[in-house]
Amino acid sequence: MKNITLKEIATTLGISITTVSKALKDYSDVSEKTKKAVKELAENLNYTPNSFAVNLRTKESKTIGLIIPEVTHHFFSNIIKSIIDAAEKNGYLVIILQSNESLELEKKQVDLLINKRVDGILISLSNESNNDSHIQDILNRKIPLVMFDKIAKLAKCSKVVIDDQKAGFDATQHLIDNGCKKIAHIRGPLNPQNSIDRYLGYKKALESNGIPFDSKLVYTCEKVNFEEGLEFTKQLFEEHPDVDGIFAITDLVAVGALAYCNDQKINVPKDVKVIGFSNWFMSQVITPKLSTVEQPSHEMGITAFNLLLEEMVARKEESEYIPKTIELETQIIERESSRN
Amino acid sequence: MKNITLKEIATTLGISITTVSKALKDYSDVSEKTKKAVKELAENLNYTPNSFAVNLRTKESKTIGLIIPEVTHHFFSNIIKSIIDAAEKNGYLVIILQSNESLELEKKQVDLLINKRVDGILISLSNESNNDSHIQDILNRKIPLVMFDKIAKLAKCSKVVIDDQKAGFDATQHLIDNGCKKIAHIRGPLNPQNSIDRYLGYKKALESNGIPFDSKLVYTCEKVNFEEGLEFTKQLFEEHPDVDGIFAITDLVAVGALAYCNDQKINVPKDVKVIGFSNWFMSQVITPKLSTVEQPSHEMGITAFNLLLEEMVARKEESEYIPKTIELETQIIERESSRN
Repeated sequence: MKNITLKEIATTLGISITTVSKALKDYSDVSEKTKKAVKELAENLNYTPNSFAVNLRTKESKTIGLIIPEVTHHFFSNIIKSIIDAAEKNGYLVIILQSNESLELEKKQVDLLINKRVDGILISLSNESNNDSHIQDILNRKIPLVMFDKIAKLAKCSKVVIDDQKAGFDATQHLIDNGCKKIAHIRGPLNPQNSIDRYLGYKKALESNGIPFDSKLVYTCEKVNFEEGLEFTKQLFEEHPDVDGIFAITDLVAVGALAYCNDQKINVPKDVKVIGFSNWFMSQVITPKLSTVEQPSHEMGITAFNLLLEEMVARKEESEYIPKTIELETQIIERESSRN
Repeated sequence: MKNITLKEIATTLGISITTVSKALKDYSDVSEKTKKAVKELAENLNYTPNSFAVNLRTKESKTIGLIIPEVTHHFFSNIIKSIIDAAEKNGYLVIILQSNESLELEKKQVDLLINKRVDGILISLSNESNNDSHIQDILNRKIPLVMFDKIAKLAKCSKVVIDDQKAGFDATQHLIDNGCKKIAHIRGPLNPQNSIDRYLGYKKALESNGIPFDSKLVYTCEKVNFEEGLEFTKQLFEEHPDVDGIFAITDLVAVGALAYCNDQKINVPKDVKVIGFSNWFMSQVITPKLSTVEQPSHEMGITAFNLLLEEMVARKEESEYIPKTIELETQIIERESSRN
């Protein structure tokens, strides 16, 4: 691609580069006639200011990086949508990378974004990640950083979260309130904080209702998908045919549980009540309609971007910035799958 | 954010900037001792090459732009995933923008990407867009451009498409083959080419089977969502209670149709057979499972990126590039909702 330079415009019109530059910026010390000539020629030649040169001058790229585990996950695609919109309204473009739940890939992507000199980074960690060296690297370089949803508790940066433990507690309590006495939990992987916290909430709810915790009723997903929901529910009914409640780490897994029950003519909610997590769109259109925990994805995206913007502004002004953690509310949505 | 420069490293070590630069690039005319000292200092100071300066030199940004109508749409989120992965493997980052089906926003976004000097642009047009001035602008500047899925037929750029007319024909023929005699079409908006083509395919299938076309059996979506599917199916059964087949522009609309039927105890597929388009994930988990047209989203994303890469390489080498159109195969997936 051939790019027209200020110099070419200057040479063509027989004026200085400075005059061309000033004319394009509407400086008052350039005559209207010259301004008109410069602007017309610039338009005819498809001149665009060289953004690399602009970047060199301003030291801003007006670009932010966003790393998420999985683009096609309903929850994350909603967050992407909110972040892109908020960024665009504030004059920022968004480079999106997906870690595919791999720490190695995530580290590489952080390096790419640092080399690209993005003005800030938004990240939701992969299942393998924690407060690792790549996070430290961002912080050491004083690049604005906000974690959301899947965070490292100890990282010294801003965070947007929900109270996963409370939400896990509420989901389990909801099943108990609706009559369940033997509740299984299909949990997420062992490492991610949100998976740990939802599991702890489940345990705590059993405990405060005097229901003994049985580790055999806990199944651990690796991939957190439909197939695992289906398979673990099959195992569950083979091993514990008297189970009467299932709390699944996410709606996708819960939908797998419903698919098994539908197939085996196990009546949901009569024989077993099921609750998921995240409120995916499909939860309201499957049969039976799935009860779930509403996680405010849109609000999470907006809040994460706004925190990043605050820090980018502060860094630019070289003023101090104290990281914040914002916790968003969740709520139980009762649909058919858990109704008493 | 404070960035370390080559100059600072040179001053600290008392050597020239050129030597520092050469040492970092492993030139053979710099001693191993100096290289080691430079590299260690660079690492300690968190030195990263200034990508803006690198960009100025190479005239490449190693960044591409991707504009799509809607990030959260299942089909597009799959495409985003494929494009990001393919781009990353080839050393490109992807800036993603969503037009929200607005021509005005899409034009603004094209300007943003041009100003950002991306190396190429991938676009799936908004419902309001066609071969408009912003597309011409990209082509005039010789910026590599590939359209996919929602394209402007007359634009002189590479394209990745499916044969929407054939796919619409096949979907309708499938309903006819399974016994339908009075088939409604819930179509997409009037402007987009893929919506027109699917509608033409529907008409042609009726015609070649000797079924008279009745424009009253065609309902036109504006938003192409679940609610419109539900509402138009309600209208359809009020106006034509003897309808026995529905072909919907996309699975989301078809799922709305199923929801109405389920609610009204209209038996699918006994009373009415339904087929959607795109093969969203939820289509295989709802009741009844939805028949649909498989659209190869993953392959479409990869193919679009590869075409763009071909053109970017050609432009860089200043060799000529002739745009290509690649058509991908679709296929009917028969599930419960259309079974005879």
